[in-house]
Amino acid sequence: MSEPKTVTLESARDLAMAAMRAHGFGEPEATATVEALLEAERDGLPSHGLSRLPFYLDQAASGKVEATAVPRVDVDGAVVRVDAGHGLAFPAVAKGLEVGIEQAREHGLAAVSIARSHHFGVAGSPVETAARQGLMALAFSNAPSAMAPWGGNRPLYGTNPIAFGCPRRDAEPLLIDLSLSKVARGKVMLAKKAGKPIPDDWALDVDGRPTTDPDAAIAGSMVPSGDAKGAALALMVELLTAGLAGSHFGFQASSFFEAEGEAPNTAHLLLLFDPARFSNDFLEHAETLFSAMLEQPGVRLPGERRYRLRREFDGRLRLPGELVAALEEHAAR
Amino acid sequence: MSEPKTVTLESARDLAMAAMRAHGFGEPEATATVEALLEAERDGLPSHGLSRLPFYLDQAASGKVEATAVPRVDVDGAVVRVDAGHGLAFPAVAKGLEVGIEQAREHGLAAVSIARSHHFGVAGSPVETAARQGLMALAFSNAPSAMAPWGGNRPLYGTNPIAFGCPRRDAEPLLIDLSLSKVARGKVMLAKKAGKPIPDDWALDVDGRPTTDPDAAIAGSMVPSGDAKGAALALMVELLTAGLAGSHFGFQASSFFEAEGEAPNTAHLLLLFDPARFSNDFLEHAETLFSAMLEQPGVRLPGERRYRLRREFDGRLRLPGELVAALEEHAAR
Repeated sequence: MSEPKTVTLESARDLAMAAMRAHGFGEPEATATVEALLEAERDGLPSHGLSRLPFYLDQAASGKVEATAVPRVDVDGAVVRVDAGHGLAFPAVAKGLEVGIEQAREHGLAAVSIARSHHFGVAGSPVETAARQGLMALAFSNAPSAMAPWGGNRPLYGTNPIAFGCPRRDAEPLLIDLSLSKVARGKVMLAKKAGKPIPDDWALDVDGRPTTDPDAAIAGSMVPSGDAKGAALALMVELLTAGLAGSHFGFQASSFFEAEGEAPNTAHLLLLFDPARFSNDFLEHAETLFSAMLEQPGVRLPGERRYRLRREFDGRLRLPGELVAALEEHAAR
Repeated sequence: MSEPKTVTLESARDLAMAAMRAHGFGEPEATATVEALLEAERDGLPSHGLSRLPFYLDQAASGKVEATAVPRVDVDGAVVRVDAGHGLAFPAVAKGLEVGIEQAREHGLAAVSIARSHHFGVAGSPVETAARQGLMALAFSNAPSAMAPWGGNRPLYGTNPIAFGCPRRDAEPLLIDLSLSKVARGKVMLAKKAGKPIPDDWALDVDGRPTTDPDAAIAGSMVPSGDAKGAALALMVELLTAGLAGSHFGFQASSFFEAEGEAPNTAHLLLLFDPARFSNDFLEHAETLFSAMLEQPGVRLPGERRYRLRREFDGRLRLPGELVAALEEHAAR
């Protein structure tokens, strides 16, 4: 492991953009991707930040990701269909969201279904954008399989995030962003690196039995959050995303980390609601609930941690030395 | 406790209808309610069956439930607003669903927001109806508070069900129906009746500490399914239901069981998707996932247990003697 490097947001942006351009990504697609990754860094979510970019670029080099894909949007009533064309997710999500917000204002609600996509990134990001424009928003994504159906032992579903954003009166949106595994798979990876066992309620081995061995866990499956209920919700997310979009279910999708193979072809669904079309004084009414929550010591509104880290962000990123080196290599390609 | 009584479905229907008519419920409203309760009995869900009716009727007698309420439906784009008028939920849900299905066919998707309502009943029921007509459907409801926000100790949210129905090719719909508490509150009630302790991970006392005492649990709050994640989802459901509808949040809603007080004024949200507007061959694609699930020994599709009990139902109900007596008393009113 090389030493971490401290870089400014601007130089990180320049480096990431150069690396994407070198792989043939168009300017709007590179911008949407790099800005999303930098936002994740800024918000204290480095697992969804620039560390992902070398994987994306290796996949662009192998042709698993279509670098020159331009998302296509097609509107039919309250349904917005987006074809990400086996490019990266971010430009497709951004374009779909823009059109979806217009449609939600017209019809009262809209669904944005994004097909032939890739890693969704921070699920809370598009719902936050929508909530800042006054809409309530839900986001779902599937992902390569990591969780078995309840009672089974072979992974079929991704850890499938659900995110929810709700506008607030004179305050930043309420922001829920969770995945449906009990713990993030990254925690198992960290234990493996550290050579440590994991608690026996995080994962199952290939025979569906609880395991404390990180290797057995990685070969096996993650335990769903809330056991059978989380598995059921992950199945629901598969059907709302890949099912509606006609994309790959988790068990059909290739890895987001390996350069070889066919495109992952995962899918996302955004649901956008214009609260003004449902009832009057939504913002005022919602505050009665938030006030009741905040009256209780120890209760925070979901999203607060992310906003605090964002406020505290000083414009400098501490990146692993290998990551900077990898991006420089991609840029010099 | 008196002996259970075995009655035919027909005689149970006649008795329940007579009891509702005696309280001034209109014929369509009584029919929607009684049929929903009988379906719950038939499907092996007696906690949502006829045992609820005496509570509903006591609330009609006190004026907490508006017996003569007729649900009003108002369509605005893809949004269907239903005012249950402080009547029971079932007629409002049925009418909203009917209009919502039409709107989903027109716009590709529709939302049905039901305000000023009461106990939602079996959340899986409306999504099953929609799925049988070829739509994918989500249902959410709030309820009087039983769960605290994460980190807090005073209940603000109901155990808020989420249900999901998905049409299948040549098979009964896939049906997910879950509440966001770790275990149903009814299990704590049963332990209390039996004078037995409960496991320490089911509920918290009024100070937010795990408890094995059923009384302390009932005074306190239920543990959310998946801990912080379940609490976040319950908050999301409050905002999607009572938030959008302008109805009471869980902590503002009065009990579904006590006859006194103001109307509960809870709310529901149905989301209806026409899969044909999202992609081609949805039914065929979805079967690839269901087949992969069923290849694993021990895996069942959600909803199977309910369908099996329904198939095995012999048209006879075993009802508690007190329940039959209470309904007879209401009918003779």
